[in-house]
Amino acid sequence: MGRWGPDTRGRLERAAMELYLQQGFEQTTVAEIAERAGLTERTFFRHYTDKREVLFRGAGRLQALVVNTVLAAPASAAPIEAVAAGLEAAGDVFQGDVERARLRQTVITANPELQARELSKLATLASGIAAALRQRGTPDLTADLTAEVGVVVFRVAFERWIGGAGPQDWTLLIGSLLGELRVVLGGAQA
Amino acid sequence: MGRWGPDTRGRLERAAMELYLQQGFEQTTVAEIAERAGLTERTFFRHYTDKREVLFRGAGRLQALVVNTVLAAPASAAPIEAVAAGLEAAGDVFQGDVERARLRQTVITANPELQARELSKLATLASGIAAALRQRGTPDLTADLTAEVGVVVFRVAFERWIGGAGPQDWTLLIGSLLGELRVVLGGAQA
Repeated sequence: MGRWGPDTRGRLERAAMELYLQQGFEQTTVAEIAERAGLTERTFFRHYTDKREVLFRGAGRLQALVVNTVLAAPASAAPIEAVAAGLEAAGDVFQGDVERARLRQTVITANPELQARELSKLATLASGIAAALRQRGTPDLTADLTAEVGVVVFRVAFERWIGGAGPQDWTLLIGSLLGELRVVLGGAQA
Repeated sequence: MGRWGPDTRGRLERAAMELYLQQGFEQTTVAEIAERAGLTERTFFRHYTDKREVLFRGAGRLQALVVNTVLAAPASAAPIEAVAAGLEAAGDVFQGDVERARLRQTVITANPELQARELSKLATLASGIAAALRQRGTPDLTADLTAEVGVVVFRVAFERWIGGAGPQDWTLLIGSLLGELRVVLGGAQA
């Protein structure tokens, strides 16, 4: 394919992930990533701003997909239904490659700075979902709570999905966790 | 009172908060905080590890209070009831001084590093609650979901409390948000 081939990004990403896992994220330089991929640093910087972006590039796409799906849900859909549709759509970003998702998570879990970044991305996702719900006419408090709960479901679903626990069909997994949450909250009424 | 008086900590904290708000957290040095409080740097370091700890010292106390209350809830309490009791207890940490809580939040919101720290503290709180629930015999998935939802309720309640929205009685606020969450999730069944 060469350095302009469609797989340039994939080669850089695989090289980066291998190095992050072998020697740690902090210890890895862009020069090493490019070398392992058989490409130049210049090529790396054509595709990524820095070595962190290799791990977080998908987050923007995921956010856009979720937010747009929430906005596009039928007006008759309850806020939680619109959010559920958004979360289901998110599966498209990672569902094709569970191994990659697992490796990425291993790299992030090993590094506090990356963990902080991940938490911040998830907070941004919650804000984006809440804003989309408000645009649909959902009152502030309901929008905030539904968005935050949506992100909780997303996180727990993602952990279970990469851990191989529960249903491996993403849509089923989201549905089953929402059901479980209803049971959890119902307990307080007892 | 003198530098050993019970209010030394309070003076340092007020001085720090004033400076963080006036000139920004990053721009403020421990020397400036001590000077404004009319105390020495040495005294500052007897009370705090660094200038960040002035803002996060309460987090450890809050975590201990929530986790211990969850553990101490009657065996017959549902997981969400045990967590609700923990969240209610948390009010003791900040309820006496809404102004301080507001100023602290303003400082944190203005600084991405502090925001990241706050998110990480909340993630630690969720893990602590989940561990306490597991110790009570709650199955893993339920423990994780209940703990995460508990932290969502805590965050939204805290925002509303410092914003002066909704009931200002912390226990009532927690109860009303849990009720609202039940309504939110019920929507998906419609």
